Amino acid sequence: MGKAKIGITIGDINGIGPQVIIKALSNEMLLNECTPIIYGSSKVLGYHKNIVGAQGFHFVTSNGDRVTSNKINVVNCWNESVNIELGKATEDGGQCAYIALDRAVNDLRDKKIDALVTAPINKHAMRLASFPFLGHTEYIAEQCNALGEELMLLVSPEMRVAVVSTHVPISEVATHVTKERVQKCILTLEESLKKDFDVEKPTIAVLGLNPHAGDSGEIGLEDEEIIKPIIIELKKKGHHVSGPYPADSFFGGIRYKKVDAILAMYHDQGLIPFKAFSFGSGVNFTAGLEVIRTSPDHGTGYDIVEQNLADPASMRQAIYNAIDIVRVRREYELMRQDRLRKNEIKNAGAIV
Amino acid sequence: MGKAKIGITIGDINGIGPQVIIKALSNEMLLNECTPIIYGSSKVLGYHKNIVGAQGFHFVTSNGDRVTSNKINVVNCWNESVNIELGKATEDGGQCAYIALDRAVNDLRDKKIDALVTAPINKHAMRLASFPFLGHTEYIAEQCNALGEELMLLVSPEMRVAVVSTHVPISEVATHVTKERVQKCILTLEESLKKDFDVEKPTIAVLGLNPHAGDSGEIGLEDEEIIKPIIIELKKKGHHVSGPYPADSFFGGIRYKKVDAILAMYHDQGLIPFKAFSFGSGVNFTAGLEVIRTSPDHGTGYDIVEQNLADPASMRQAIYNAIDIVRVRREYELMRQDRLRKNEIKNAGAIV
Repeated sequence: MGKAKIGITIGDINGIGPQVIIKALSNEMLLNECTPIIYGSSKVLGYHKNIVGAQGFHFVTSNGDRVTSNKINVVNCWNESVNIELGKATEDGGQCAYIALDRAVNDLRDKKIDALVTAPINKHAMRLASFPFLGHTEYIAEQCNALGEELMLLVSPEMRVAVVSTHVPISEVATHVTKERVQKCILTLEESLKKDFDVEKPTIAVLGLNPHAGDSGEIGLEDEEIIKPIIIELKKKGHHVSGPYPADSFFGGIRYKKVDAILAMYHDQGLIPFKAFSFGSGVNFTAGLEVIRTSPDHGTGYDIVEQNLADPASMRQAIYNAIDIVRVRREYELMRQDRLRKNEIKNAGAIV
Repeated sequence: MGKAKIGITIGDINGIGPQVIIKALSNEMLLNECTPIIYGSSKVLGYHKNIVGAQGFHFVTSNGDRVTSNKINVVNCWNESVNIELGKATEDGGQCAYIALDRAVNDLRDKKIDALVTAPINKHAMRLASFPFLGHTEYIAEQCNALGEELMLLVSPEMRVAVVSTHVPISEVATHVTKERVQKCILTLEESLKKDFDVEKPTIAVLGLNPHAGDSGEIGLEDEEIIKPIIIELKKKGHHVSGPYPADSFFGGIRYKKVDAILAMYHDQGLIPFKAFSFGSGVNFTAGLEVIRTSPDHGTGYDIVEQNLADPASMRQAIYNAIDIVRVRREYELMRQDRLRKNEIKNAGAIV
């Protein structure tokens, strides 16, 4: 099946996205592992290449249908000149990011690329460009007819953390903790661990919503009335799930190292410990989708874009994770077909 | 002024409190630094001493008015026999904890002891014993006529973190983030850093409430409308305060090491990174009170009480921190009186 074709969207052209792409791909080792296809613009990449001063970064242009293996391919998604205003959320910046993302997601859906890695966008710029979604994840889920199926999963060598709610105000977090949603998250996470990360029998730890996981109902009732019953029910059915754990002491010990993944109830509850322990190499993966999409776990870095301070570790890791997941899924699919074939033979034998 | 007299409440007699006290005080070095006075019961301590097997733990009984320096003093707060049911939240357990706390807080208020260290209690047991407070902090604040002035401040060699709201359900967290409360917390924290920790010009980082600190108002309005204006106002007045910072990336970098303290908006936002980085030696200090009170940052440990697995690091640190704060406050007070005297002399001179 050959090397994985990894699409990479350029992200906000006024942010560090283009720079971390250039830096990550300047290491030629990566070309042995995949064929990268950047969705964006040669001109914008040239502009940022000057800031970064990356001598090792060369590319060929492509229309997306034909790509050159062993080269970095760039799909020019617009032809007009655009105004780059480093460090600023602009309509132009939002529009370019939107156009590149749209083109890439089309190719992802059409299986022209095997996975997509998205460079960061800015919510304000995207709104100026009339992008009607909370972020990449929701857009991709909607374009792939899977809105509501997606699960934000953060991955690093240290841990995997998924979150029940993502970019919602704290005042609304509790309303997302419903029986349906939490159960779906646990099952989606379990399925992803098997299919995308090659974990045969996944173990999942679930964090409590309230301080001290509600302290037996003393601090809010959600932990006792919603989360605990789901865990008991799933355990009975043979799933390796435990909790709800008080989130603060959970990460104070070594318990987090002993499970395959952790389900946090909200953004900061999962992302604070994740980022604290992943030292800049964390990756965001959207579990629960048929398509494969990863991204670095940082933002547009407007404050450091002019000084060439952006660290490409997370982007590099996002590309490697995408490649790994493509491979694991291919093997998982082969194994599944193998099992099917064996069953058919067995059943055919039985009929004869 | 002599060695600090450090009161220590026994906490829940069915939990690990008595065990971490015994283990921490078994190191005789501590007796050079302070005179410890345990509020509880010799019998209960004897029971737990058998579990712990601490040969080096000897004590004298005291009525609290007279204490023996260079010895561990125990004030027997009840004479009846009590039922110890290890690992269980019982009415007896709650009542003993309540009686010991009440006696100790009286002595603290009457300045018979210089500081109080509280071993953990269980919320459920305390409720069975009709203890009408959320926890130690609220009880002590009320007994010292300072309810609403108290601020939970977590201290470790790695960082200091205070929280705007403590043991409240996530669904109510946002209602605690008012202009008055946040501003008061910042000023109380600043004052405590000067008075209790000997920081001359304290720098304070304030975390945002919502994910990404609200992303310029895209995710909830509290960060833009409440927290940011307070910071701007205080900066203008010369305070070294900054933020609101997105909480996840704040602890992902080294920024948290560059300030004297951090103000988090809610329990898990502050305590997850605190416990993740303090490796079991974190201490809870109640800032904003005239009296000095610290405690270990763990709970009653019902699940490990029978196996003698409790780690005394946090209790030991809580005692040392209490001693340090007593010293710093004494020096601060001496300096203040010195300044007053100099001013008086100067003014007297001017009048003549």
